[in-house]
Amino acid sequence: MKFSEIFIPTLREVPADAVIASHRLMFRAGMLRKLANGLFAYLPLGLRAFRKVERIIREEMDAVGCLEIKPTVITPGELWKESGRWETMGESMLRVKNRAGADFVVSPTAEEAVTSIVRDELSSYKQLPLSVYQINTKYRDEIRPRYGVMRAREFTMKDAYSYHRDEDSLDNTYQAMGAAYRRIFKRCGLTVIPVRADSGAMGGANSEEFMVESDIGDNTLLLCKSCDYAANVEKAGCQPDSPNFPQNAALKMEKISTPHTKTIVELCEFLKTDARSFIKTLVYRAVNVERDLSDAPGCAGLKKRRVAPGAPEVYDEAFFAVCIRGDLDVNEVKLAAILKAGDASLACDADVVRITGAPVGFAGPVGLSTVPVIADPTVAAMRDAVTGALEADFHYAHVAVGRDWTPWLTADIRTVKAGDHCPVCGSELYEKKGNELGHIFKLGYKYTKAMNVRYLDENGASQIPVMGTYGIGVDRTLASIIEEYHDDAGIVWPMSVAPFHVVVIPIKYEGKIKEAVDILAMELEKRGVEFLIDDRNERPGVKFNDADLIGVPLRVVVSEKNLPNIEMKLRKGKNVFLVEIPEAAQRIVAMAYSEAGK
Amino acid sequence: MKFSEIFIPTLREVPADAVIASHRLMFRAGMLRKLANGLFAYLPLGLRAFRKVERIIREEMDAVGCLEIKPTVITPGELWKESGRWETMGESMLRVKNRAGADFVVSPTAEEAVTSIVRDELSSYKQLPLSVYQINTKYRDEIRPRYGVMRAREFTMKDAYSYHRDEDSLDNTYQAMGAAYRRIFKRCGLTVIPVRADSGAMGGANSEEFMVESDIGDNTLLLCKSCDYAANVEKAGCQPDSPNFPQNAALKMEKISTPHTKTIVELCEFLKTDARSFIKTLVYRAVNVERDLSDAPGCAGLKKRRVAPGAPEVYDEAFFAVCIRGDLDVNEVKLAAILKAGDASLACDADVVRITGAPVGFAGPVGLSTVPVIADPTVAAMRDAVTGALEADFHYAHVAVGRDWTPWLTADIRTVKAGDHCPVCGSELYEKKGNELGHIFKLGYKYTKAMNVRYLDENGASQIPVMGTYGIGVDRTLASIIEEYHDDAGIVWPMSVAPFHVVVIPIKYEGKIKEAVDILAMELEKRGVEFLIDDRNERPGVKFNDADLIGVPLRVVVSEKNLPNIEMKLRKGKNVFLVEIPEAAQRIVAMAYSEAGK
Repeated sequence: MKFSEIFIPTLREVPADAVIASHRLMFRAGMLRKLANGLFAYLPLGLRAFRKVERIIREEMDAVGCLEIKPTVITPGELWKESGRWETMGESMLRVKNRAGADFVVSPTAEEAVTSIVRDELSSYKQLPLSVYQINTKYRDEIRPRYGVMRAREFTMKDAYSYHRDEDSLDNTYQAMGAAYRRIFKRCGLTVIPVRADSGAMGGANSEEFMVESDIGDNTLLLCKSCDYAANVEKAGCQPDSPNFPQNAALKMEKISTPHTKTIVELCEFLKTDARSFIKTLVYRAVNVERDLSDAPGCAGLKKRRVAPGAPEVYDEAFFAVCIRGDLDVNEVKLAAILKAGDASLACDADVVRITGAPVGFAGPVGLSTVPVIADPTVAAMRDAVTGALEADFHYAHVAVGRDWTPWLTADIRTVKAGDHCPVCGSELYEKKGNELGHIFKLGYKYTKAMNVRYLDENGASQIPVMGTYGIGVDRTLASIIEEYHDDAGIVWPMSVAPFHVVVIPIKYEGKIKEAVDILAMELEKRGVEFLIDDRNERPGVKFNDADLIGVPLRVVVSEKNLPNIEMKLRKGKNVFLVEIPEAAQRIVAMAYSEAGK
Repeated sequence: MKFSEIFIPTLREVPADAVIASHRLMFRAGMLRKLANGLFAYLPLGLRAFRKVERIIREEMDAVGCLEIKPTVITPGELWKESGRWETMGESMLRVKNRAGADFVVSPTAEEAVTSIVRDELSSYKQLPLSVYQINTKYRDEIRPRYGVMRAREFTMKDAYSYHRDEDSLDNTYQAMGAAYRRIFKRCGLTVIPVRADSGAMGGANSEEFMVESDIGDNTLLLCKSCDYAANVEKAGCQPDSPNFPQNAALKMEKISTPHTKTIVELCEFLKTDARSFIKTLVYRAVNVERDLSDAPGCAGLKKRRVAPGAPEVYDEAFFAVCIRGDLDVNEVKLAAILKAGDASLACDADVVRITGAPVGFAGPVGLSTVPVIADPTVAAMRDAVTGALEADFHYAHVAVGRDWTPWLTADIRTVKAGDHCPVCGSELYEKKGNELGHIFKLGYKYTKAMNVRYLDENGASQIPVMGTYGIGVDRTLASIIEEYHDDAGIVWPMSVAPFHVVVIPIKYEGKIKEAVDILAMELEKRGVEFLIDDRNERPGVKFNDADLIGVPLRVVVSEKNLPNIEMKLRKGKNVFLVEIPEAAQRIVAMAYSEAGK
């Protein structure tokens, strides 16, 4: 293709709102333009690279026997009501009423739509396992779309869904998907950090996020310096650490006066001790709590109810006291997960006062009966601790868990930090920011149960299939490639996703130079190499700069002075080679295919 | 691919609402399922055929230098307000407010979005002509979606837009697009009727619709028995026909009493004459009239106003008397086009009475000064006609146009019917119902003017580009192929769009048969032939029926009794050939590629 026949409006200026490299470079290289906040149009060059990523994903999905389908972008609201997500998805889900007043959703994801199709077609165990995917438009009404296509409102997602007779079958597909994801990101040239989350519920890892490191990442990752442990802070665990304090379990609990000491810091100063000897007690409010609380202190009056037909029964709200060692922080995501709650956040001061019977700052587990007490394992081991006495200006000292109070529940609710110890090998953990490109997840029975999907097993008994879901953000993957492959001059595409394999720059596209270029082009065309001839009547400097900016992996310069040789240079290298045309063509073909990841 | 590894849920029953063959067969063949009224999901087999059509369209667009881009499906309402279509598009355009209250549109088409991108990037005449296209999701909120994907709410459209310095350049692209469309439909195996519309405004044809004949078509076409003239009834013309009546121009106009004769039929009986001697006068109400009426009778009080920033100034409403020969009907689409009106429809009785000063049934042009009178050319030639006298129970006889009254405007507003004479060759016209698959259209300056698109010409002067638009409905094209290619047993795919080139049916997939099938499969795989092996443990009859239903063009049966020969049969033929495997492979490859239209 000739530069004059394509539309690549390169820019010298950087759009004011483009703060990350991929956003800047996609605009400058004429790949992308903005239609509105969070809405972007791919121009021809951008779409060529986008299609390469899309094709890699498609090939790897097909290779693991996942079947491509095409549901709609606009989906009926009814399906979302069946699953209960009409209520729970919040405002980021774009809802629309049609002229007849019926509810629709501009799909942010498609568990419901795909499950409804499977429900209608599934009859026998012989049809399982079944894995399907789409690569299609999605919409999330982000409040603050930013960073170009990295966090846009409309985007393209590859979303796959699998249905199984049992968890072994689900695990087979889950493993195959994980392997496919590794191949996809490898073929895209991306360095991804696979982040596993363990959950006892289903045995083994039940989800894995594929992250790329990024300063603007919306995830905090904890990584081990020695082994390959990597976890999202939301779920990261660590080895128990001893507080290294004398724990004199023989001392009796004692109420002490601690005037004007509302914070741990104040208390440490007052008692001349360390935060690690305190039991920090925080009151949390959780909403839409699915976990059974019928045996929990102070919860006798709570009643579960069903918010939507397909949703499980939940308590609208419930309060909890959460105890953790004084130097640590509570992880609200872990807390919500343990409670199977929609959300968990600190209670307001009024609720704290009502529940503890004391001003804020004097909460403690001893004698607390108004709410259930949840303790982190770091607390469960404490035998000589200080904690609030549920009374203004008083604390208890020498508190021993199990003797002076007993938690309703002990569970890991600790926010792991850099410096904590790897739960696998014990080495130190460190932190990185990451962006999620993909996610594979064993969903279990959530949607198939809520939407009543059934099949008959070998014995003619009606069964509910178990489900997995697997997503990749196509635009975000493309942008992440640019984040990883660029320099001051522009993009440096890996061959596998480059919009063109080679850019051919005639110093002037006329006479002998034109002849040579046209011969080379014919050779490349024959062999399926994707080339761009910069036939513009521009200064060589302009052409070189644009070639560097748009990042084509291989550059060929044809000048009168070098003929019959032409000059070859890799975008990522510095060396220039002079080669005769027939050999150049061969070398270009070899490079285009060896690095194209095919 | 093996039947057991794909998901083709064939059906014996026909969905109750499927009245046309393509709708029935897409469901029965397991290609398509319904998510909601007018919302369909393509299953794997359907998507394979869909992608074939998409690829043909893409290849032909690329071949004429049209560049693929990808704007969003959700577009900002602001752009639609700029062009004025926020007001004029009506309720079939799905509008949505996001969480911040901003207006968005689920794109039914993309003139605005693409023009806004071009506006931002266009600076110089050197960038023109520029043609871009997308193949993307569209939505129209049809009140009564019907006929499966033939008239769905969500659908996929290939929509292209071109921008030019002048009308010659536009015409070049328009002609190239027309040729590409012919190739696209030919490669899909479709018999299309190209329907041109002439418009004096820009010289030559300025739009062409590509129709397929269909009983459920929403267009009425007029076709010539002798030449290739074809027109949509909305725009069809015909040769003037003489009424074959004695026209005695010497007789003076005379007012005659015609008691109780409100209709032409009653009047014909009363006067013992023929409808062709009457001037039928109808009062029309037109809205959003752009045509200048400052010189028109009765219009002095009308004022134009701008409905939307980008829209032209229009009169909100205006009334007209429309005169046509008594045996003919007024074509409201032609009338609206002449007036450049949003819509033209018969005035209500009260308005007729107010405007004519007489009861309904006595309208006539003589002495009518309250509204402008528009005459069809059939009327302009009348010299001895009967018409209403603007007075109850009275008509004028011997009316001569030009002597007794003069129309404000003479223009073709006649509805052409079967039996009228071809405007090109004079032969008789006949009617057919048609469905529109594609449309190419010289838009002119409508959007580029409204949205203020500018470029600098060679002389540095600011100019507005002229624009063309070119659409193809992908789903509808696919469904039309099935309409044209099916029999009682199922679909009969043309090779070019078949989801598989060949279906291989082992009588039982085991032992020697399996060996033979696997050898054949290996040969086909190597050569890129797309095959489906029916490895199911089903009776041969079930496999044959499914093969016929899903319509794969070539069927190969492998049975113990015929080995080492295998049986080949075309879906569209009856003959069966016995061929040894190596030769069979060669013949299959040859057929797959010769008919694939590549």
